[in-house]
Amino acid sequence: MNKQRLEAFSDGVYAIVITLLILDIRIPDAEPALLGATLVRLLPQLFTYVLSFFVVGLYWHAHHQVSAQVKRVNNPFIWINLLWLLFVSVLPFPTSLLGHYPFQPLPLTIYGINLILVNLTGFFTMSYLRYHPELCSVPITPAALRAQVPIYVLVNGIYAAAIGAAWFFPWLSYGVYILVLVWMITRYIQRAEPVEA
Amino acid sequence: MNKQRLEAFSDGVYAIVITLLILDIRIPDAEPALLGATLVRLLPQLFTYVLSFFVVGLYWHAHHQVSAQVKRVNNPFIWINLLWLLFVSVLPFPTSLLGHYPFQPLPLTIYGINLILVNLTGFFTMSYLRYHPELCSVPITPAALRAQVPIYVLVNGIYAAAIGAAWFFPWLSYGVYILVLVWMITRYIQRAEPVEA
Amino acid sequence: MNKQRLEAFSDGVYAIVITLLILDIRIPDAEPALLGATLVRLLPQLFTYVLSFFVVGLYWHAHHQVSAQVKRVNNPFIWINLLWLLFVSVLPFPTSLLGHYPFQPLPLTIYGINLILVNLTGFFTMSYLRYHPELCSVPITPAALRAQVPIYVLVNGIYAAAIGAAWFFPWLSYGVYILVLVWMITRYIQRAEPVEA
Amino acid sequence: MNKQRLEAFSDGVYAIVITLLILDIRIPDAEPALLGATLVRLLPQLFTYVLSFFVVGLYWHAHHQVSAQVKRVNNPFIWINLLWLLFVSVLPFPTSLLGHYPFQPLPLTIYGINLILVNLTGFFTMSYLRYHPELCSVPITPAALRAQVPIYVLVNGIYAAAIGAAWFFPWLSYGVYILVLVWMITRYIQRAEPVEA
Repeated sequence: MNKQRLEAFSDGVYAIVITLLILDIRIPDAEPALLGATLVRLLPQLFTYVLSFFVVGLYWHAHHQVSAQVKRVNNPFIWINLLWLLFVSVLPFPTSLLGHYPFQPLPLTIYGINLILVNLTGFFTMSYLRYHPELCSVPITPAALRAQVPIYVLVNGIYAAAIGAAWFFPWLSYGVYILVLVWMITRYIQRAEPVEA
Repeated sequence: MNKQRLEAFSDGVYAIVITLLILDIRIPDAEPALLGATLVRLLPQLFTYVLSFFVVGLYWHAHHQVSAQVKRVNNPFIWINLLWLLFVSVLPFPTSLLGHYPFQPLPLTIYGINLILVNLTGFFTMSYLRYHPELCSVPITPAALRAQVPIYVLVNGIYAAAIGAAWFFPWLSYGVYILVLVWMITRYIQRAEPVEA
Repeated sequence: MNKQRLEAFSDGVYAIVITLLILDIRIPDAEPALLGATLVRLLPQLFTYVLSFFVVGLYWHAHHQVSAQVKRVNNPFIWINLLWLLFVSVLPFPTSLLGHYPFQPLPLTIYGINLILVNLTGFFTMSYLRYHPELCSVPITPAALRAQVPIYVLVNGIYAAAIGAAWFFPWLSYGVYILVLVWMITRYIQRAEPVEA
Repeated sequence: MNKQRLEAFSDGVYAIVITLLILDIRIPDAEPALLGATLVRLLPQLFTYVLSFFVVGLYWHAHHQVSAQVKRVNNPFIWINLLWLLFVSVLPFPTSLLGHYPFQPLPLTIYGINLILVNLTGFFTMSYLRYHPELCSVPITPAALRAQVPIYVLVNGIYAAAIGAAWFFPWLSYGVYILVLVWMITRYIQRAEPVEA
């Protein structure tokens, strides 16, 4: 298997996950006169759907940032990548849970743990590449990897704090997930130079 | 990420959305003797399925018309494209709603709003490209963008009128969505010269 | 949109349809002691699943046979292809119906109509190509198209007879669908020379 | 159809199967106070999900190992490949069954049979290639095929034993499936040299 094939497979998984998310929102049976009220009750699910749509979009973007530095793959890298995809493709479950129980501590906790697991696997992938320059188009230097550490620590530290907050101020926890997402997307959007890789 | 990868990801989302639509039509339990009557009651869902199938097909075609003018992408373009895909991949929800309540004002309204949102994002994408000629194979001139304005205003104006009509003459509203779809597809089909891009 | 992109999109739809079919078979709640009997009742669904899996596989193969003769596409061809994909991606619905009511006339009829519709659209695609040699790598001659007519008439005539038989001898009708499938697959398999296109 | 297209189609099926698995885990309605206990009851399903995720990943990897030796395809090979994909894409059904009844003999048996069927089809594919060197980039020698026999016999023998054990010691049977999976993945990971094909 070459790098292009692994990327195409990963892109497929991301495209499927991001599209499947909507399937969780089911139309309830309702009297036509009560349809409005019924749909209003679906709003938390719709909101969580949008949150997870962009979360998956963000991870897809991040996946490509890493992948762009890869020239070829080996078997361990394929399986690290599968582990990464596992934590991405499990996300519809915490999303559904959070959509049904938007301000309960447990769903907020599980959602946050999922986000942290994706991030950790992403960082693990980078670390593996740093020790296997033969896989990289441009080797990842120890300094380059170290430069990524603060942002990883910060983001996952915030997520850990949000998990703690979920048990006392669920609204705050939910809000933190949104804010970190907006912040990460903003960071990407601010770089407007064309990307080639 | 290069242009080809973004296109392949987007194509994947379109292919998944267009294929998932049928999953919403569930076989109800019925006595064999009553199966015919039960299936007749599914006809509105089947009809809405066909409508949305071609709506997604149309947006996929439109997406390629825009994409054919793109040479390379940057981060903001990737995220504008994700926003576009969000409004496409949410469509199974209004489709399901309209299939279950085909002549209720609220489902007709939500369906129409979804169509308008896809169109607006598509136009926004074109506008972004017009101000970023470095992303285009052939730069989009201000005149070329302006030439698109009347058709966008007309189509979305009709949709807005159909949303209004939904609250008084639901049949009319539903009919307008079908007619606009037929009209847009006819416009494409009339251009029979081979396309290369 | 070029030919490769249309093919990739179509392949995506076929891959999704063929994989989604299994989702229809739901695990019923059952006492562990009754699990065996419960699963036996799922056998008709499992059998119909296998039938439709190979039907979709057959159409995918046929799609490529046609596609291999195409050099480039135009807008009408894109929409004829979408119509073809519509009848393919609707198949999970008759499959589910037939799986739940394996020997009822109506599901057998709807399944047969679906098969005929896919075949007709496939033939229509070939006919369109015959009148548009500018789209073909090797133009389809009138004689080549005519040579396809008998097999199309025969297969769809058999399907029509099976639809009629469904109302009197459902077992016969179901058996005919299986036999035609086996016959068509056998025809493909007998040609063992490598294919390049 | 050329080899690349068959591979892309197969990759699509694998990507869809691996991503669909999570859809089976549904959020039950629960009082917020009982949510924790409810989620604990989902753990067997979550565990089986992870098992099947890596099983599919393993088969995908194995598929590529075989595919890397293929230069071009013929019609019988396409249909052998479809048979292989049938047994892969049916896996969500035994997975769901095992998730709901994790220590019942029948689900463990069905799961094991599915694993054996995938393995047998994989071996059948290799055997077909061994007798059709015109399809291979490097012909598979009789000795190379024979060298694969012991591992196939061993793995499927273990699965057969686990199926037998399912009727007396279900825990043991489940544990064997996990151990074989871990063993097979470890075998892959130990080969860390870059792969090109």
